[in-house]
Amino acid sequence: MRTANTVVVHSKPKLKDPILLEGLPGIGNVGKTVADHLAEVFGAKLFVTVYSKHFPPQATLDGECVASLASNELWYAKDVGGHDLVFLLGDCQGLTPDGQYEVCKEMMEDVFLKIGVSRIYTLGGYGTGLISECPRVLGAVSDAGMKPELEEAGVVFSMGEPGAGIVGASGLFLGFGKIAGIPSACLMGETSGHFVDHKSALAVVEVLEKLIGFEIDKTMFEEMARHIDELAAHIAENEKTDSGDLGYIG
Amino acid sequence: MRTANTVVVHSKPKLKDPILLEGLPGIGNVGKTVADHLAEVFGAKLFVTVYSKHFPPQATLDGECVASLASNELWYAKDVGGHDLVFLLGDCQGLTPDGQYEVCKEMMEDVFLKIGVSRIYTLGGYGTGLISECPRVLGAVSDAGMKPELEEAGVVFSMGEPGAGIVGASGLFLGFGKIAGIPSACLMGETSGHFVDHKSALAVVEVLEKLIGFEIDKTMFEEMARHIDELAAHIAENEKTDSGDLGYIG
Amino acid sequence: MRTANTVVVHSKPKLKDPILLEGLPGIGNVGKTVADHLAEVFGAKLFVTVYSKHFPPQATLDGECVASLASNELWYAKDVGGHDLVFLLGDCQGLTPDGQYEVCKEMMEDVFLKIGVSRIYTLGGYGTGLISECPRVLGAVSDAGMKPELEEAGVVFSMGEPGAGIVGASGLFLGFGKIAGIPSACLMGETSGHFVDHKSALAVVEVLEKLIGFEIDKTMFEEMARHIDELAAHIAENEKTDSGDLGYIG
Amino acid sequence: MRTANTVVVHSKPKLKDPILLEGLPGIGNVGKTVADHLAEVFGAKLFVTVYSKHFPPQATLDGECVASLASNELWYAKDVGGHDLVFLLGDCQGLTPDGQYEVCKEMMEDVFLKIGVSRIYTLGGYGTGLISECPRVLGAVSDAGMKPELEEAGVVFSMGEPGAGIVGASGLFLGFGKIAGIPSACLMGETSGHFVDHKSALAVVEVLEKLIGFEIDKTMFEEMARHIDELAAHIAENEKTDSGDLGYIG
Repeated sequence: MRTANTVVVHSKPKLKDPILLEGLPGIGNVGKTVADHLAEVFGAKLFVTVYSKHFPPQATLDGECVASLASNELWYAKDVGGHDLVFLLGDCQGLTPDGQYEVCKEMMEDVFLKIGVSRIYTLGGYGTGLISECPRVLGAVSDAGMKPELEEAGVVFSMGEPGAGIVGASGLFLGFGKIAGIPSACLMGETSGHFVDHKSALAVVEVLEKLIGFEIDKTMFEEMARHIDELAAHIAENEKTDSGDLGYIG
Repeated sequence: MRTANTVVVHSKPKLKDPILLEGLPGIGNVGKTVADHLAEVFGAKLFVTVYSKHFPPQATLDGECVASLASNELWYAKDVGGHDLVFLLGDCQGLTPDGQYEVCKEMMEDVFLKIGVSRIYTLGGYGTGLISECPRVLGAVSDAGMKPELEEAGVVFSMGEPGAGIVGASGLFLGFGKIAGIPSACLMGETSGHFVDHKSALAVVEVLEKLIGFEIDKTMFEEMARHIDELAAHIAENEKTDSGDLGYIG
Repeated sequence: MRTANTVVVHSKPKLKDPILLEGLPGIGNVGKTVADHLAEVFGAKLFVTVYSKHFPPQATLDGECVASLASNELWYAKDVGGHDLVFLLGDCQGLTPDGQYEVCKEMMEDVFLKIGVSRIYTLGGYGTGLISECPRVLGAVSDAGMKPELEEAGVVFSMGEPGAGIVGASGLFLGFGKIAGIPSACLMGETSGHFVDHKSALAVVEVLEKLIGFEIDKTMFEEMARHIDELAAHIAENEKTDSGDLGYIG
Repeated sequence: MRTANTVVVHSKPKLKDPILLEGLPGIGNVGKTVADHLAEVFGAKLFVTVYSKHFPPQATLDGECVASLASNELWYAKDVGGHDLVFLLGDCQGLTPDGQYEVCKEMMEDVFLKIGVSRIYTLGGYGTGLISECPRVLGAVSDAGMKPELEEAGVVFSMGEPGAGIVGASGLFLGFGKIAGIPSACLMGETSGHFVDHKSALAVVEVLEKLIGFEIDKTMFEEMARHIDELAAHIAENEKTDSGDLGYIG
């Protein structure tokens, strides 16, 4: 028996106390949207690919019919607001509960501890089922001492939210970070969970700007967020009409 | 591949032939209720946390939004009735059959055999579907020679009960104890299994008082037990009324 | 990660080229009935217990409330018809497909190859759904050269039976025996599969008597077989009456 | 814990930069039909058998009642169009997603990398649900640089086909080949997927003839393909009649 993961190292960049930003798929793909965008904006470079027996056993094709096994990827960007950043990106998580655990634990031990990650932000969505006009960014931390700094950046700590805990990679890296003594937090943008939510992603980006100390052009997010507002207005309008109709019928 | 569990040792207390009390979640949460309460009463201290790939892959939050990975915990209390005690506490067991086995076997080999556990009491419930006025504490042992001592403490050995055997951690540690030559018993409080059963837990506590040689204030249990009696009376009353009604209708 | 099995050795008998008789639960429990009975008749002694994470994670109780983990057991009997015998007995097989494979493979490597097993007979049932007046004993072999000897002992080789192959321990040890170069055969007593079939078991015992060179008192099997004949006659009678009734009604 | 596979080496042929042709069961059994046939035509010799805990835990019988464990097999043929060929043949793939991954990864590491495989063609079907008059052979590659050579041999690269990626051994070996830096391609014959499709297999064989540089008697394939054409014509005829009927009824 080998390890569950195969870690392919493309380069060994010198990183100083890097901050890990986890953005794998999840509720409303909030975390993925944020991390993919920031990695692009900062011109991040791929340096590690992680394959695993716990990912779907298949190859996917790009537009040129070039195949790749399902994987997670690590990208780095140097000197963002004075910090080196590492992004955990990808299109899949482990297929089973113990698979999710094993994939993340091996990444933690084989990569993140070795490159000296100094802080972990796992990025996710907090599904409410409702479209929020002004989505909050909820927080969970490995250490209560981190809360003032996060609150100053706009994070809300709300007792009992999320009540069901934090599942998958966002919960696991928060927990593994705590075990390893690395200050770790999960930032969860409030989202209906019904579509890829750029408005929620924008809220998370604004928190990260303050936490890490950078500023980016958020036009894309703002435009997408406007679409969501229009969509929400449209739905609300229809619902009014609907209830009117229903009243008339009833 | 690593071990299934990650064992984090917080301190290495000197324990003399400790007695292990297993109180993980189960039928009527009888075992958990007993073990959690005794650990609190005796001011037990956390010394080991066990994480596992077989536990739910998620972080749960406390009231302060501080996250922790799903885990089992070991707490110790020194000199209780002349004995050192180790409590196995937690909110989860392994998610799959082989996961349950692996979690418990690794704990046995990596912790309990190393700290020289001299006796094992696994605590559980025996679900009958009925609310009992005076719940028995059924027993199962690793060695027939243990029975007189247990019977003296009030344990009932009833051929064919429980007929389906003892599943999960309570059965596994009893079995692993037997393999390792450690006198081991499972104490099962009779319970309806429909709610957290403090009356059944009280019966198990009374057995443990005699077995280990301590005495605690059982007021809390007695009050909770009284509520259960009231509940049972209420249900019985309703059932009478119900049948009366039904007779009238019929 | 450890091995899937825990092998507990109670004694190390000197065995000369022992013959392995596998009799774990299966269709009509034919193999189990045969192996359990022969082990008893020959006064076999328990020398190895095998526990596994792939067995049900539970303890079962005997009539004295003494608990044991689910297990498989090895018993030996010396000088039966000039041969030393090893019986593989138990109440369970692995719970999952890969579990079944792993349990048997580890037993093969950790025990059977080490004690120099010289021949393997896996004992099973061949479910036909019908009660046979004179159940055949079908055979499958690791090597075509074994067939004449088996045919002389009454084994029938019937092309295409069983069409679905041989599942579980009976198929696996036959296959592992072949890989290890150990002459191996599966003996399958024809059975309806609807109850524990002593008549089919009797047929398998008669084959083994000739193959191994022993003779036992088969009164028990013959009596149980008579019951089965009576049962079959009774069912046949009822079916006639039933169709008569149906004709009358129709 | 051992490896998931047991690799039995029957002989160690000297192979020069062999080309691997994977032909395990899949959609329309196109890949299996091609690989089985070519192995036979070229008089390939069995040199490795691979057993695995991830294959069905059972023995299958040949016409002589000789049993074999479920397995995959490696056959070689020397100097075919100037190339040594290795065929991966068998009747099963792993039963679970992580099983499929583990079986293939261990074969890659324990066999294919060791014998110096220089190129990989995984052979499969592309299920369209329709019977095609002239089935295309779609391609996916590990490296865009391979495309001109494949296109010259008749392979079609069609963006977005197959949209769902390539599952199982055909996808995995393509992906593992890419990771190992071995030029690898998946050749997928278009097929309805409803039966063993010799017409699609013929199309794949014609591509391989050009790619590897051999020519074989394709009479068998052509005859089987003719049957399929007749079948398709028959179905089309019936459909016409059917709609006629339906029109009349309607």
